[in-house]
Amino acid sequence: MSKYFSKKYASLTPYTPGEQPKDTEYVKLNTNESPFAPPPSVVEAARAEGARSQLYSDPECSALVEKAAEIFGVKKTQVLPTNGSDEILHFAFMAFCDKDTPVVFPDITYGFYSVFAKLHSIPYKTIPLKADFSVDYRDYLHANATVVIANPNAPTGLCLPVWQIEEIVKANPDNIVVIDEAYVDFGGESCVSLVQKYDNLLVTQTFSKSRSLAGARLGLGFACESLIADLNAIKYSTNPYNVNRMTAAAGRAALCENAYFTGNCKIVCENRQATATALKELGFEVLDSKTNFLFVRSDKIGGRELYEKLKERGVLVRNFTGERIKDFNRVTIGTAEQMEIFLRKTKEILEEKANENSGDRS
Amino acid sequence: MSKYFSKKYASLTPYTPGEQPKDTEYVKLNTNESPFAPPPSVVEAARAEGARSQLYSDPECSALVEKAAEIFGVKKTQVLPTNGSDEILHFAFMAFCDKDTPVVFPDITYGFYSVFAKLHSIPYKTIPLKADFSVDYRDYLHANATVVIANPNAPTGLCLPVWQIEEIVKANPDNIVVIDEAYVDFGGESCVSLVQKYDNLLVTQTFSKSRSLAGARLGLGFACESLIADLNAIKYSTNPYNVNRMTAAAGRAALCENAYFTGNCKIVCENRQATATALKELGFEVLDSKTNFLFVRSDKIGGRELYEKLKERGVLVRNFTGERIKDFNRVTIGTAEQMEIFLRKTKEILEEKANENSGDRS
Repeated sequence: MSKYFSKKYASLTPYTPGEQPKDTEYVKLNTNESPFAPPPSVVEAARAEGARSQLYSDPECSALVEKAAEIFGVKKTQVLPTNGSDEILHFAFMAFCDKDTPVVFPDITYGFYSVFAKLHSIPYKTIPLKADFSVDYRDYLHANATVVIANPNAPTGLCLPVWQIEEIVKANPDNIVVIDEAYVDFGGESCVSLVQKYDNLLVTQTFSKSRSLAGARLGLGFACESLIADLNAIKYSTNPYNVNRMTAAAGRAALCENAYFTGNCKIVCENRQATATALKELGFEVLDSKTNFLFVRSDKIGGRELYEKLKERGVLVRNFTGERIKDFNRVTIGTAEQMEIFLRKTKEILEEKANENSGDRS
Repeated sequence: MSKYFSKKYASLTPYTPGEQPKDTEYVKLNTNESPFAPPPSVVEAARAEGARSQLYSDPECSALVEKAAEIFGVKKTQVLPTNGSDEILHFAFMAFCDKDTPVVFPDITYGFYSVFAKLHSIPYKTIPLKADFSVDYRDYLHANATVVIANPNAPTGLCLPVWQIEEIVKANPDNIVVIDEAYVDFGGESCVSLVQKYDNLLVTQTFSKSRSLAGARLGLGFACESLIADLNAIKYSTNPYNVNRMTAAAGRAALCENAYFTGNCKIVCENRQATATALKELGFEVLDSKTNFLFVRSDKIGGRELYEKLKERGVLVRNFTGERIKDFNRVTIGTAEQMEIFLRKTKEILEEKANENSGDRS
């Protein structure tokens, strides 16, 4: 830090994105991307707008918003597109939290929530997940704070039913509840329709996972009109043209390709099921994922050790450092071929480890 | 505003972008876009990356940064790409201003500076431009505040020489000086090379004007390594993947097309000269612009009236409401054809006005 850096950031630790290595071609199962490229209609929609990039984008993203409202069954004034869902989450922390309005979220969840809180000097409290790594919705009733829950949660992959989310929203009428649905399309239940009923609910989604547009950066926020107006006040005070022309067009085209993406999600869920079964046969504990990743651990090998040995063999997964989860790895579900390689390498590593251990004992 | 919106924004007035009308095809001279489309190599580079958008973008934008460092003669660690130059400016306000470090900028300048200051509750002071609308660099020596100057300034179009910028930087060793060079490629002098010499200087540029990529959203910040590290701490605490794949690729390709963009800037400067001459013949006062716009007023017609009458005739320019500048209009320099239409319509309006007035007197 330079001597000019504002002292208010003295305790700030920025978010660390998953590795994006440039040295080797890895089987990349570490950042929960889709293994499927966007369809030609999406690529073409972006290209056509790229050719007109001398003109500013529409700050309202009208064409995208119109399509999103139609697909999600809300009004146009209930949708806000952003530069990835990180941006809508950031806007929410700015708009609905401050020194007098703290924020609460699970101890194990998306690592960015605590970064946003620290960045803006917002007091925050974390609530421990249960021993089985589930969120107990009763912990968030009458929170007296802004509530942020990823549903399904990451990196656990576990999901709450919508009725429990609704209980949380109902029990916090004086506070905003943010439900981050980044992974909802892989078996979770969306609560977007609840924004019609409650004026204290913000639901966020992303095009990075099920819609194959991680590299295009597009997120959506859904809420009642007045909350979207608040979030727009933040947007127009930070970056009015936050979504570029190409991404807005790609996003709209993606919303017209529902069959393609639904088919991809089905394949991912099938591969997830097959991978979970195979890992359990290898003795892994596998949490019940409703996402495009599995959160797994084995008592035969440490989490960091497995991560490192897989990396040596050209397979990237994600290991975390938190005390409660350091034995786990988060494994993105890719194609059947990718999962086959991951499983083969994992089996090799466990076999070597078993041989080493039996050697130790001889 | 909803009852949930943080009270700290009570006095916030978001930025108002220039009109992006969807109803009619206007001769659009209101948002300082380039009249020239990006070249095919730029469109193709973006398309190729669009086809791989299922993968996250490189958060470091390495390929873009490498090319920018080469072109601008700085180290890779001295460059930071952002989602438009609004984002690098926002990062600078977050990083280098706070309640104890106020910010100072001219009373007439880019309207976003005061929005950023209000958004983050940063005390700010504005210094009046001189009567001729120029910035007097002596007003910014020993400022005891972060200094932000657009050079050339907008909406005046006037420019300071680099030696005066250097005097400001030298005279504020304990504060950051931000020089916003959005319009520098149309006749201004860039001070990017000074970042090698001073550790308190941040220079920002954009691809929105001279490089025909307003709709792609790309800005660059240049500073010494430690300031770029500070700004990266903000970036990685807000939106690590802030620049999408397509835009990063388009930006890199644009940096390889210097001849094309230099040629376009030359045409814009020629059209600016011709338009200025014609307007002066019509009796307009025309400030000495080093940008892709002219800032003009006539004692024969009010600024708002001319703006409205041009709009009725299909020509959009930008009028501002500030007391000192409400008689002016800011006219983006487009193609020769566009400027010919603008001049013809302006002449018509002045003639009608003269006829009305002579009618009044009869």
